[in-house]
Amino acid sequence: MTDYTLRPIGRVESPLTERAAAPRQPDEGAPGAWLVFDDRYAPALDGLAPGTDVLLLTWLDRADRDTLTVHPRGDAARPLTGVLATRAPDRPNPIGLHTVRILAVAGTRVRVGALEALDATPVLDVKPLLTPDR
Amino acid sequence: MTDYTLRPIGRVESPLTERAAAPRQPDEGAPGAWLVFDDRYAPALDGLAPGTDVLLLTWLDRADRDTLTVHPRGDAARPLTGVLATRAPDRPNPIGLHTVRILAVAGTRVRVGALEALDATPVLDVKPLLTPDR
Repeated sequence: MTDYTLRPIGRVESPLTERAAAPRQPDEGAPGAWLVFDDRYAPALDGLAPGTDVLLLTWLDRADRDTLTVHPRGDAARPLTGVLATRAPDRPNPIGLHTVRILAVAGTRVRVGALEALDATPVLDVKPLLTPDR
Repeated sequence: MTDYTLRPIGRVESPLTERAAAPRQPDEGAPGAWLVFDDRYAPALDGLAPGTDVLLLTWLDRADRDTLTVHPRGDAARPLTGVLATRAPDRPNPIGLHTVRILAVAGTRVRVGALEALDATPVLDVKPLLTPDR
């Protein structure tokens, strides 16, 4: 199969710097963060509105892409499970998917609420939430 | 910023073959499809359960990655909007995000319900739905 090239459009600025300290889900105590976009993508941000929830796609650049099975949530008591049936960051294409609330937009800097991504994580995309489950 | 390499883990088999004919959302008449995974990723599928809804991530390989603004839903009467505030397929990193129901798992072939992706679309990842909005 053909490979494809991801070109990050920005990065996360967050007080989270160590994977071991990062919460697994945003409701487990994640801090707010900035999304800092490259200037060339400024037109793509037009329409992002404070107060709305969006889907943020990131590249989990510290993930192990060769991992195919894991113990869910790192709990050795839980049986090995295929990574596609888990939210483990270690997976063949470690794309992070986060629902975040936009708090402010300042040029190409976007302030968001609770985000469990590490500082400097590459940002790939932002998408509006269409319906409650998408 | 550093680029990254996506390695598709499978592809979509669908009766949809033309972008112009593809529905924009699955509730607009999308057909069922097969997800056909490369054999090497078989262990990663362990735990995918028929009857559950999952998030499917695809690479929209026919998208235009240089498009930064669009008229939402192709309607020229709607003002130009940054692609990050829309679900348009044309965007810098055209990752498709689809909520699909798993209907059956047969080895490395997974049958899913309504899916608006075109035939041969590369599959990047599958993730369980954690909560109604993620």
